[in-house]
Amino acid sequence: MGRVVGVGVVGLGRIGIVHSEIFALRVENAKLVAVCDCREHIARSIGEKYGIKWYADYEKMLKDKDLDAVVICTPTFLHADMIIRAAEEGKHILTEKPMTVTVDEAKKVIKAVEKAGVKLQVAYMRRFDYAYSKAKKSIDEGKIGKPLLFIGLARDPAPPPGWAADPKKSGGIFLDMLSHDFDMARWLMSAEITEVYVRGGAYLYEEIREKGDLDVVSISFSFDNGAMGYIHGSRKSTYGYDLRTEVYGTEGTIFIGCSSDPMFSLGTRDGITYSGIAWFAGRFYEAYIAEDKHFIECILEDKKPLVNGIDGLRAVQIAEAAWKSFKERKPVKIEY
Amino acid sequence: MGRVVGVGVVGLGRIGIVHSEIFALRVENAKLVAVCDCREHIARSIGEKYGIKWYADYEKMLKDKDLDAVVICTPTFLHADMIIRAAEEGKHILTEKPMTVTVDEAKKVIKAVEKAGVKLQVAYMRRFDYAYSKAKKSIDEGKIGKPLLFIGLARDPAPPPGWAADPKKSGGIFLDMLSHDFDMARWLMSAEITEVYVRGGAYLYEEIREKGDLDVVSISFSFDNGAMGYIHGSRKSTYGYDLRTEVYGTEGTIFIGCSSDPMFSLGTRDGITYSGIAWFAGRFYEAYIAEDKHFIECILEDKKPLVNGIDGLRAVQIAEAAWKSFKERKPVKIEY
Amino acid sequence: MGRVVGVGVVGLGRIGIVHSEIFALRVENAKLVAVCDCREHIARSIGEKYGIKWYADYEKMLKDKDLDAVVICTPTFLHADMIIRAAEEGKHILTEKPMTVTVDEAKKVIKAVEKAGVKLQVAYMRRFDYAYSKAKKSIDEGKIGKPLLFIGLARDPAPPPGWAADPKKSGGIFLDMLSHDFDMARWLMSAEITEVYVRGGAYLYEEIREKGDLDVVSISFSFDNGAMGYIHGSRKSTYGYDLRTEVYGTEGTIFIGCSSDPMFSLGTRDGITYSGIAWFAGRFYEAYIAEDKHFIECILEDKKPLVNGIDGLRAVQIAEAAWKSFKERKPVKIEY
Amino acid sequence: MGRVVGVGVVGLGRIGIVHSEIFALRVENAKLVAVCDCREHIARSIGEKYGIKWYADYEKMLKDKDLDAVVICTPTFLHADMIIRAAEEGKHILTEKPMTVTVDEAKKVIKAVEKAGVKLQVAYMRRFDYAYSKAKKSIDEGKIGKPLLFIGLARDPAPPPGWAADPKKSGGIFLDMLSHDFDMARWLMSAEITEVYVRGGAYLYEEIREKGDLDVVSISFSFDNGAMGYIHGSRKSTYGYDLRTEVYGTEGTIFIGCSSDPMFSLGTRDGITYSGIAWFAGRFYEAYIAEDKHFIECILEDKKPLVNGIDGLRAVQIAEAAWKSFKERKPVKIEY
Repeated sequence: MGRVVGVGVVGLGRIGIVHSEIFALRVENAKLVAVCDCREHIARSIGEKYGIKWYADYEKMLKDKDLDAVVICTPTFLHADMIIRAAEEGKHILTEKPMTVTVDEAKKVIKAVEKAGVKLQVAYMRRFDYAYSKAKKSIDEGKIGKPLLFIGLARDPAPPPGWAADPKKSGGIFLDMLSHDFDMARWLMSAEITEVYVRGGAYLYEEIREKGDLDVVSISFSFDNGAMGYIHGSRKSTYGYDLRTEVYGTEGTIFIGCSSDPMFSLGTRDGITYSGIAWFAGRFYEAYIAEDKHFIECILEDKKPLVNGIDGLRAVQIAEAAWKSFKERKPVKIEY
Repeated sequence: MGRVVGVGVVGLGRIGIVHSEIFALRVENAKLVAVCDCREHIARSIGEKYGIKWYADYEKMLKDKDLDAVVICTPTFLHADMIIRAAEEGKHILTEKPMTVTVDEAKKVIKAVEKAGVKLQVAYMRRFDYAYSKAKKSIDEGKIGKPLLFIGLARDPAPPPGWAADPKKSGGIFLDMLSHDFDMARWLMSAEITEVYVRGGAYLYEEIREKGDLDVVSISFSFDNGAMGYIHGSRKSTYGYDLRTEVYGTEGTIFIGCSSDPMFSLGTRDGITYSGIAWFAGRFYEAYIAEDKHFIECILEDKKPLVNGIDGLRAVQIAEAAWKSFKERKPVKIEY
Repeated sequence: MGRVVGVGVVGLGRIGIVHSEIFALRVENAKLVAVCDCREHIARSIGEKYGIKWYADYEKMLKDKDLDAVVICTPTFLHADMIIRAAEEGKHILTEKPMTVTVDEAKKVIKAVEKAGVKLQVAYMRRFDYAYSKAKKSIDEGKIGKPLLFIGLARDPAPPPGWAADPKKSGGIFLDMLSHDFDMARWLMSAEITEVYVRGGAYLYEEIREKGDLDVVSISFSFDNGAMGYIHGSRKSTYGYDLRTEVYGTEGTIFIGCSSDPMFSLGTRDGITYSGIAWFAGRFYEAYIAEDKHFIECILEDKKPLVNGIDGLRAVQIAEAAWKSFKERKPVKIEY
Repeated sequence: MGRVVGVGVVGLGRIGIVHSEIFALRVENAKLVAVCDCREHIARSIGEKYGIKWYADYEKMLKDKDLDAVVICTPTFLHADMIIRAAEEGKHILTEKPMTVTVDEAKKVIKAVEKAGVKLQVAYMRRFDYAYSKAKKSIDEGKIGKPLLFIGLARDPAPPPGWAADPKKSGGIFLDMLSHDFDMARWLMSAEITEVYVRGGAYLYEEIREKGDLDVVSISFSFDNGAMGYIHGSRKSTYGYDLRTEVYGTEGTIFIGCSSDPMFSLGTRDGITYSGIAWFAGRFYEAYIAEDKHFIECILEDKKPLVNGIDGLRAVQIAEAAWKSFKERKPVKIEY
């Protein structure tokens, strides 16, 4: 397989830098050929670090003949247009999650991608994490019997920075943060979410309240196969990043994640104290690598990405229903 | 304090035997003077074991002059009448949970007890468990800031035996099993539950389905102070008794309970395997002792029990609302 | 099996009270008929609590016709004489560990017991603990292949109180505290200890130094089947009772015990903090019950106790060798 | 600080590839300029991957003007000569551990490095691990009072491959594997090891026995400040890489490492099963990065490496004493 996929990364924030590094160094048959950020000095700095082309203008990068694929790491509200333009230019697309802010956008994206016949992968990287993958495999093999209940608990150590603090740009907590958990729920349970009921509020941060987002939420839901689900998310965790997922089945239970790092503890008169888990980039770095490799593999072997446009759409639909449930204070059904 | 409280236990099933043993041996200023069970041979056997009086007829035991207090451990549907009769006879009452099957009964019980001026304590023993007590104390001291979310996960290793399998007699899963968790939610959060939304079903046992009870449920709820809650209960846990409670606050989180016993594990090619936790009587034996001591103390020092008639009523009200929510498939508000 | 064994407990300190309670209430076919302590008021108090005979004079109790067996819970240096006298009076004996202070005494005890034809059980109660029992069973079933290494870590929260602080009366740290671990080493590995090498000192408590005992020790040793061992003991543990045992085999490893109680933890900016484990009486209460039941069973069914005089002797021999190694600062071989 | 250190890596086995990757991509102010391996095709392959020079001849690489520093990752028995030659050529040296096979070699190396005035760092990367660093900091800050006992348990999932299976080339288990633990013992306790007593054997692998190495060992030792130590090492762990370290002090205990990965577990009728920890390269990848950064920093800022020639020598001295103790079956003192 001598072909090498030329990759360009657009949006050089925290996660764009991670993808750049990975495509530059860790993915066989891929070559990072360009990076792009409207903040020219950042684009240049990363471009020079890897000795590759850099752009401040996305349209220009799209015209680059060396590019086979783009990785879209810009703020969420820019995704739809950028994916559509990339598709029109015949580039394969790996887009950071969530795919779009609205369901309408998501549907347009899917149409454009289908029309262009390019690959579209949505970066729900937990699907490539070793622990979540093991969970999926165990469930599919029947290790816990029939899965009946999904529980997801997610606490970030800090509120979203920059544009992500604005729910109009990010989709707010349901989309920006918890769409990961919606995706895990659908994937691990092999079922679609049909009704959500949300409780929540802006309990922690004045800024979040002002912008109309929420910071602590509690979501119960149903699946179309009769199973049940619950997700709790918070934008604050004093003891560290806390991400736990549990799937209860007729014959067993799977536990993923943990609240503290067992590698160091100190026993004194106060008891035994553990540190919290490091932030997600540390927890999921290997998953990002696997995700990026999968994208290249799908392009080269003409396979359907594990997380595709429909998965991207579903997450947006669920988040939209969650917002509706929160605002109307009642359970909301989701029609697909 | 030379006075000694004469105690009679009625209902010598699993939990009646625990209370008998404790009052016989472990509570100062209390004396087990009689036991009662309609199954005469059982009453006699326990009575002889401790060298005390035994009755097959509750009414006769109530007339016993040596009795200052009764401990009611009979099936739930018998509680209301037995509490009321004990109150009428001027006996203090420690009743096993739940206090009654219906809200109407609960209200009658409270009136009868008030009229008689006797003590009534409801046996939600988790309030006397060292771990839950520590949680309560930590929360009240502000260690986690303002509590925002209560999570309770409860999985029993096996379905309820005997009469408890009949929801008409036991109140079903919400009352028989999860009223413990409702009580913990109210107590730890220092707030009342105002709305519940239930999902669930009889997924596991044919017998439970036939009798009209549920075996796996998922309950989201709100508190009157704006906080949120979630409780999951199941009548099956292949790996052992699994009871975990978590309270998330603005400044920290409290974790109570665990899924496995760390005392023994075996590392082989399969990984490292832990056993589950033993059944609740082992987990909470010390709590039962503390509960029984508290009851005697309340009698002797004329104090209000930590878990009183109102607490008993609240649990029944919440369970009743949970059943309504399940049947009507919508959130149900609770008026107090 | 209608026969009931009449039991008398001598020495009503911490552990004597535990055995009294258990024989009074928890062992079928046994009846606590008398207690004895040279501190008359203590003997009377316990005797009255259970409504049984009490003695201040051991010789008088030994003459009690209702006694079939004695449980010796006096200070260690009194054991040898008391065991021998009990044997001479034809009483079966359950003696607290260690059996004696010296090897000479231990040998005399064994002879006396053999001559009298009574049962002698030594109270290494860990053999009856569920976790250690499971370890023994797993090892014997070959779950970890051939065991190659025994590791025992034992930290008490506080120094020994009263007479136990005097190594002449207690045998010091090797006998009073770590003979439990020597016994576990022999039992779990099904092998005898043949050479010990000790490092240690009185690092923590001035009183221990003055009395000639040690408070932190590190002991490496060999077994007669080629396996290896290590035991560390300390008389101080700020975070709680810490007892862990590990057996490494060719195909797996068994882990017993843990340093902290997983039932409660608090997550804050400082991390997640667990409490230590409660003191041994809590950890091993069920083991004491099983041990006492075993003793009665051995008497009634004429079986050899699981922990007999030879086991008692071995522990004293190893401890004696440990003291010799410490004093001579070299490895010491043990001849049996 | 515009200067950039040109680095050449020699020995492109498992660990050489790790260092190459890190120097190529992750260390500011460093530039991987060449790689070298006597297996020409491997050198070429890595060289081409990074677009840098490659050599099959170490002497030639040493003459490369672009090289300021070499990273020596060849088999241990080649280290001494290669370090000395690098020093003679004025190159700074980061050598993989252990520094040399013999004490004589180690002393020659130190002299040569001193004479040349170059930096020498020995790659005991645990010193750069976050958990071990936190332990060091906590101990030095007095969090556990005065440290009294060091315990190190180390189990590799598999025997050493290739040349490392030959103790003449690798120094055997004490040097090749456990010198990490000796280094941790010295560093965390801030003390020198003065006497070792070894038990052990070739229990597991026929090949190890034939080559004269050991596969399971148990080592007790003393420090020059009166503290004590114990290290156990094994070349087999069925459940995964198991590395735990514990430092017990007068006021507390530090625990580092754990036997299983808490990120995934499966609860079934068999209990709750965790997987073991991944192999050391995963556990310590970040430590390797920090180590390599430190090396560059020491060169550019003319600082003394945290792990220098004396540390390298000490580890060899302790390992040599361990071998002597094993062979002579007695404690061996170490003179420095």
